[in-house]
Amino acid sequence: MKNIKAIISYDGTRFNGWQSQKNSDNTIQATIENALSNVFGQKTEIIASGRTDAGVHALAQVINFAAETNKPLLELLETINAELPGDISVRNLSYEAPRFHARYNVKSKVYLYRILNDKIPDPFLRKYSLQYPSAINLELLERASRAFVGIHDFSAFTTQKKSKKSTSRTIYKIEFKKIGNELQIFVHGDGFLYNMVRIIVGTLLEVNEGKIKCEDLEKILRDGNREAAGFTAPPQGLFLYEAFY
Amino acid sequence: MKNIKAIISYDGTRFNGWQSQKNSDNTIQATIENALSNVFGQKTEIIASGRTDAGVHALAQVINFAAETNKPLLELLETINAELPGDISVRNLSYEAPRFHARYNVKSKVYLYRILNDKIPDPFLRKYSLQYPSAINLELLERASRAFVGIHDFSAFTTQKKSKKSTSRTIYKIEFKKIGNELQIFVHGDGFLYNMVRIIVGTLLEVNEGKIKCEDLEKILRDGNREAAGFTAPPQGLFLYEAFY
Repeated sequence: MKNIKAIISYDGTRFNGWQSQKNSDNTIQATIENALSNVFGQKTEIIASGRTDAGVHALAQVINFAAETNKPLLELLETINAELPGDISVRNLSYEAPRFHARYNVKSKVYLYRILNDKIPDPFLRKYSLQYPSAINLELLERASRAFVGIHDFSAFTTQKKSKKSTSRTIYKIEFKKIGNELQIFVHGDGFLYNMVRIIVGTLLEVNEGKIKCEDLEKILRDGNREAAGFTAPPQGLFLYEAFY
Repeated sequence: MKNIKAIISYDGTRFNGWQSQKNSDNTIQATIENALSNVFGQKTEIIASGRTDAGVHALAQVINFAAETNKPLLELLETINAELPGDISVRNLSYEAPRFHARYNVKSKVYLYRILNDKIPDPFLRKYSLQYPSAINLELLERASRAFVGIHDFSAFTTQKKSKKSTSRTIYKIEFKKIGNELQIFVHGDGFLYNMVRIIVGTLLEVNEGKIKCEDLEKILRDGNREAAGFTAPPQGLFLYEAFY
């Protein structure tokens, strides 16, 4: 058996997330496992760098799986893509050492959140961005974003149920890129709690609107109270952008 | 009554074209007329620069309609967009002289055809491009495209039923733009027959594949035989890009 790593992208619009809590087949994981099982003629399970929520997209999700194959990888890639629906695509395949594990070995990830900063909706971005009509004070957002950088307990920035697992995560960097009327926010961290990027983005927008003060962000992080943070920005603006190993 | 011109964009994916032949409500025209009728409280009909087929998109379709209103145009625009579904958007509104007519007065139009030139499908372009895996000889395509420029009878490049109307059209320019793995083809002409841009694109791709010879294009135009021209490229790659007045 070979250990194969795949980089995949998907339009999360119609899926019930990466892995459903209720035994739904309409998940990205189930759809890929089904395609791989057809290609290899036996049940094939995959491991991902992490889950994405319903409606969230991926430009470069990383998965691995065990398979018996002698096909050239480019040919295998085309065979798998032919089995996949149009909204999921394998971008690259490579052989990895047997111990490579897409979830355990991931060092950090970058998420991208796309904001269409315009009063006028764009039909072609409606499923791939949050439309935000008010003026954005980019300098204020950049200042506010610094509060998140570093090691913090992100309890206030998740809708995850309380558990014994650590809610401490490291944010390495938050970067902003303005392209025309679009604002792209890149969040690079060692790991993310459930809804964490979306709540960070929602909080930054509430800072923009003066509903949350820039100076209060440290306290909000310290207190760990979800109510004090901003809203959860909608899933369609979020993309898993890169996973580092 | 005021004569209002609107520039609109739409994702044509789920619509049965601009105007259906069978009395379907699932057309872009019916959807916009319905929204405008709700906004103005009376039946409002629109005139477009021209129709687009099922699955074809528009970045800047031009329409006009008569309405009684005193609202500032930006406010009106927002009211109309709030009535429209997310896949249709009004980008701009302006008052025009009473005699302005979006169809009669249009001087020329530019269509864009997007080709994803890659073996690997892109989930985010699947509804907005034709995926074409083979290598493209851009120089050959540019040479071939010159055969279409000028005044020609485009009978071989339409699936329109024969009628007494002229099938002569002028192509001003065909331009190619390569952006990463995407090839964009811009076709600028004074008017277009049914499926004309899509058959021109299909023919260029068959020239690329050696199925049609560059040197035969003039004869194909002259003979006016649809069978001799290339295939009709699929609608999802086509965008009405601009209409000039």
